Amino acid sequence: MSIYSNPNYGAPGGIHHSHSSSSHHHHHHSPAPPTYAQGYGYQQGPPAGADPQLWQWFSAVDADRSGSITVNELQSALVNGNWSRFDLDTVKMLMNIFDTDRSGTIGFSEFSGLWKYVSDWQNVFRHFDKDRSGSIDGYELSEALRSFGYNLSPSILTLIEQKYASGPAAGYGPPPGITFDRFVRACVAVKTLTESFQRVDTDRDGWVTMNYEDFMKIVLNAP
Amino acid sequence: MSIYSNPNYGAPGGIHHSHSSSSHHHHHHSPAPPTYAQGYGYQQGPPAGADPQLWQWFSAVDADRSGSITVNELQSALVNGNWSRFDLDTVKMLMNIFDTDRSGTIGFSEFSGLWKYVSDWQNVFRHFDKDRSGSIDGYELSEALRSFGYNLSPSILTLIEQKYASGPAAGYGPPPGITFDRFVRACVAVKTLTESFQRVDTDRDGWVTMNYEDFMKIVLNAP
Ligand SMILES: [Ca+2]
Ligand SMILES: [Ca+2]
Ligand SMILES: [Ca+2]
Ligand SMILES: [Ca+2]
Repeated sequence: MSIYSNPNYGAPGGIHHSHSSSSHHHHHHSPAPPTYAQGYGYQQGPPAGADPQLWQWFSAVDADRSGSITVNELQSALVNGNWSRFDLDTVKMLMNIFDTDRSGTIGFSEFSGLWKYVSDWQNVFRHFDKDRSGSIDGYELSEALRSFGYNLSPSILTLIEQKYASGPAAGYGPPPGITFDRFVRACVAVKTLTESFQRVDTDRDGWVTMNYEDFMKIVLNAP
Repeated sequence: MSIYSNPNYGAPGGIHHSHSSSSHHHHHHSPAPPTYAQGYGYQQGPPAGADPQLWQWFSAVDADRSGSITVNELQSALVNGNWSRFDLDTVKMLMNIFDTDRSGTIGFSEFSGLWKYVSDWQNVFRHFDKDRSGSIDGYELSEALRSFGYNLSPSILTLIEQKYASGPAAGYGPPPGITFDRFVRACVAVKTLTESFQRVDTDRDGWVTMNYEDFMKIVLNAP
């Protein structure tokens, strides 16, 4: 069936690496050097060999200077092009991917991967935001998902467009566009769900048989 | 199989009606003639027979006094017990349920149903927040879902607890609790997904066969 026809099926795992970035468009203030003489745990400089710019960003996000980034600090630091905050679900998704030691926070070594991931997705977003509106509309979404190798029907694309739009459709028109953080979550959700479906569809005929438990497990594991 | 063993299966559709308070049914608003004294569109009083308290709340949420509530106005008005804002996905879910004329906004007659729904869920939340912590932990969640008639395995309950928690688990401990708005979304998601599964499982043996298109449709239709 159609979903298996494209050899790139299973992207965008490769997408966000193919747009390798040197672009730093982040609007974080350079933090003042830590001058907490006492009572505060944070006195560490960057680790030896650390990228100074990356350390700067890490320190800016680590608002309480504890040396690691909590979900709240990350959510406060990440904004969309229209200055809206990232959804908690997107921030939790990022932490799930990059908190590799499962400490519940993002340390500096974990931050490097997270920052690259976000930057690479920003490039993907800009690439597909053809009209430079700062959001992804239905057409741009379908182009993006098609380029990642997903062969989705118009009705599925419409559902994705509605679910991840930054609001409901006003009247019977199209929904508003999809902001950056929700675009990333939409793409990762499609990838996760498709791969999970594929794992059950061992004979690759586009049909699966599963029980309630496995069905719920697959759905709940998608971001 | 287990998921069909409880006659209440399919709740919590009935839950938020069982806490019926004085129900407000204002299905037709007859707005007073607009008296545009100056540059501001909103001079309407409450429709005849409107509950004055409900009109008060509606007017408070309708920040720009346009006579209807946008997704942003609703998101600004709704806060959890810890003062965190409702997630956009929860607000969109509410609008999807109560924007019955699909205008993209909530009018006063639609607001009545929305307000009752939120109040009833607040009662449900308080009922299951046994330790009065202001959030629902894993045990409280399992009690709530069990009382709604869902017979979910421990691993599914853990997935729900993690997905809807207000942050990741810190270290290897349990995740933080689930705030009100995410609790409602979790319950509605479980209800929607279970009902969709059930609709495909026509012989009710707990197994379904479906294709990729139907699978994605079911998942994307859950909040
Ligand atoms: Ca960590
Ligand atoms: Ca655009
Ligand atoms: Ca409406
Ligand atoms: Ca509690």
